[in-house]
Amino acid sequence: MRAPSELESMAGTDSAADLQQFVIETRRLVDAALDRILPAETVSPAQVHAAIRWSVFAGGKRFRPLVLLAVGQTFGAAPEVLIDTACALEMIHTYSLIHDDLPSMDNDDLRRGRATCHVRFGEATAILAGDALQTLAFKTVSEDEKLSTAKRVQLISEIATAAATPDGMVAGQARDLEAESRQVNEFELEQIHRLKTGALIIAAARCGAIIADASETELAAVTKYAAQLGLLFQITDDLLDITATAAAIGKTPGKDLRSKKATYPALYGVDTTRKHLAAAHQLACAALEDTHRPAELLRAIADFILERQA
Amino acid sequence: MRAPSELESMAGTDSAADLQQFVIETRRLVDAALDRILPAETVSPAQVHAAIRWSVFAGGKRFRPLVLLAVGQTFGAAPEVLIDTACALEMIHTYSLIHDDLPSMDNDDLRRGRATCHVRFGEATAILAGDALQTLAFKTVSEDEKLSTAKRVQLISEIATAAATPDGMVAGQARDLEAESRQVNEFELEQIHRLKTGALIIAAARCGAIIADASETELAAVTKYAAQLGLLFQITDDLLDITATAAAIGKTPGKDLRSKKATYPALYGVDTTRKHLAAAHQLACAALEDTHRPAELLRAIADFILERQA
Repeated sequence: MRAPSELESMAGTDSAADLQQFVIETRRLVDAALDRILPAETVSPAQVHAAIRWSVFAGGKRFRPLVLLAVGQTFGAAPEVLIDTACALEMIHTYSLIHDDLPSMDNDDLRRGRATCHVRFGEATAILAGDALQTLAFKTVSEDEKLSTAKRVQLISEIATAAATPDGMVAGQARDLEAESRQVNEFELEQIHRLKTGALIIAAARCGAIIADASETELAAVTKYAAQLGLLFQITDDLLDITATAAAIGKTPGKDLRSKKATYPALYGVDTTRKHLAAAHQLACAALEDTHRPAELLRAIADFILERQA
Repeated sequence: MRAPSELESMAGTDSAADLQQFVIETRRLVDAALDRILPAETVSPAQVHAAIRWSVFAGGKRFRPLVLLAVGQTFGAAPEVLIDTACALEMIHTYSLIHDDLPSMDNDDLRRGRATCHVRFGEATAILAGDALQTLAFKTVSEDEKLSTAKRVQLISEIATAAATPDGMVAGQARDLEAESRQVNEFELEQIHRLKTGALIIAAARCGAIIADASETELAAVTKYAAQLGLLFQITDDLLDITATAAAIGKTPGKDLRSKKATYPALYGVDTTRKHLAAAHQLACAALEDTHRPAELLRAIADFILERQA
C-alpha cells in the first residue's frame, strides 16, 4: 500500500494529472446539469427548492457521477448521454444524506462544513426536500430523450434496486441504525457498507456501462470493480473519521467512534483496516483487467480513493 | 345536491350496486398485488418492511388504484395490465401519508383508526419506510413487463411530476404547512388541494387512460374529470372532519379546524362548501360526456364521493 507521502509524488504522473482534470470537468458538468434540472429557488414552494439546492450544491465530491461518467466514457459513451443519469444518482445520494442527518436518524448538525438541511430549513422542509429530490431523480431519467425508452427503464430499475430495500441503500441505513445499539461482527459490517454505500456506487458504474452498450461480460467486470471501489470509499471514510481534522473532512471527527457506529477501525483496528484497504484496491484493479479496455481513468479513480485525505 | 338520506336509496340502483362490486373487487386485486410486490416482513431489514406493510395494509380506501382501474377499463384495458401501476400510485400515496404524519409535519398519532407508522415503529424507521416505498413505486413501474418500455417511461414521468415539486404532491404539502401560520385566500386553498390531493388523482386517471391507449382528446377529458373528482374528494374530506365522528373517519374529528389548517368549511362555511361540492360533481360528470364512451362506472365514482360518509 502506498504511504500518504506518495500522494504528492503521484500528482506529478500523467494518470493523476488526467484524473484531476477529469474530476474538475465532471464537477463542472454535473453542477451545470443539476442547476438546469432542479427547480429554481424563486419557484414555489421556494423553501423546499432552497433546501434542495442548499444540500445539492453543498460542495459534494460528485463521486457517483464521476464513477458513472468514467465508466461510460471508458466504454465509449459521450458525456451528453451520461450526464442526466449521473445527476439522478447524485440526487438520490443527496436525498439520503438529508434524511440520514435528521434528528431521529444520525442527528448531524454539520455536513461538508456547513449546517445540515434540517438545521438550516427545519425538519419538515428537510423531509420534503429529500422526498422531492428522490422523485425528481426518477423523473429525470424517465424524461431523458437522449436515451431509448428501453434503456431508461433499465436505468430506473438499476437505480431503484440500489436505493430501496431489501438490497439497497435504505436497507443499509436501517441496518446501520439497528447496529448502533450493539456490537456487529465482520460479516454484518460488510453487509451494512455494501448496502449503504456500495449499492449506489455499483449502480453508478453499471448505469454508465449500460448507457454505453457494454456487453454482459463487461458489465460483470465493472460491477466487481465498483464493489471494491465502494469498499475502498467506505474504509477510507472510516479511517478519515479518526485520523483527520474537522477542517479537512467538514464534520466533527471521531463522531462515528463516540456514537458506537459500526466502522472498520473500531472492529479491526487501524493497521488491519489499512490491509483491507490495500486488498480492496488490488481487487478493484484486477477486475478492470476483465474489461479488456484501456481503463487508466478507472484505475486512477481507485488510486485516488486509496490516497484520499478528505 | 343529494341529501345524505338519498345514499341509502341510491344503494338500490344498478350503478351503485355495480360500483360496490367494483370497489370490493379492486380492493381485493390491489391488496393481493401489493402483497406480491412488497418485501415480506421476514426479509431484512424486517423493521422497515413491517412498517411499510403496517401502513400499506392499514385499510386504506385504495381510491387512486380505483380511479386508475376504472378509467383504464372504461377505455378497454384489462385489469392485469393496469394493476402494477395502480399499486405504484398507492405506494406513493402511502409514503406521503407516513411522512405527513411525522411529528415535525402534521404530528398525527392516529390514521385510519390505528397508530401511525412513527408511533408504532419510531421516527427513523417511519422515514425509511416512506423513502423505500417511494423507490419501490418507481421500481415497480420500471419493471412491469406487461407494458411497453415507452409506456413505462411515460407513466413514471406522469407519476413523478404529480408527486414532486413544483407541480405535485410535495409542493402541496409544503404550501399546506406554510399556510398553517396564516389565513389563506380561496385561490391559495384551491392551489394547495390541487397539488396535495388533486395531482395524484389526476395522475391515476391519466395513467389508466395512457395504458389503455386513449387518444389525446380522451386523455384531456379524463384529466378534467379527475381534477373535479380530486376537488370533490378534498371537499368531502374537509366536511367529514367537522361533521363525522372519530369512529367513522378513523381520526380525531375537528383536528383540522383546531390546528388552523386551511379547509373549505373554515374559509366558506358549510353551506357554501356544499355548493362547491355540487358544482365539482356536475363538472366531473360533464367532462365524462367528452370521452364519448359508456362511462357509468366513472359517473358512479363521482356520485359515491359526493355522498361518502367516511
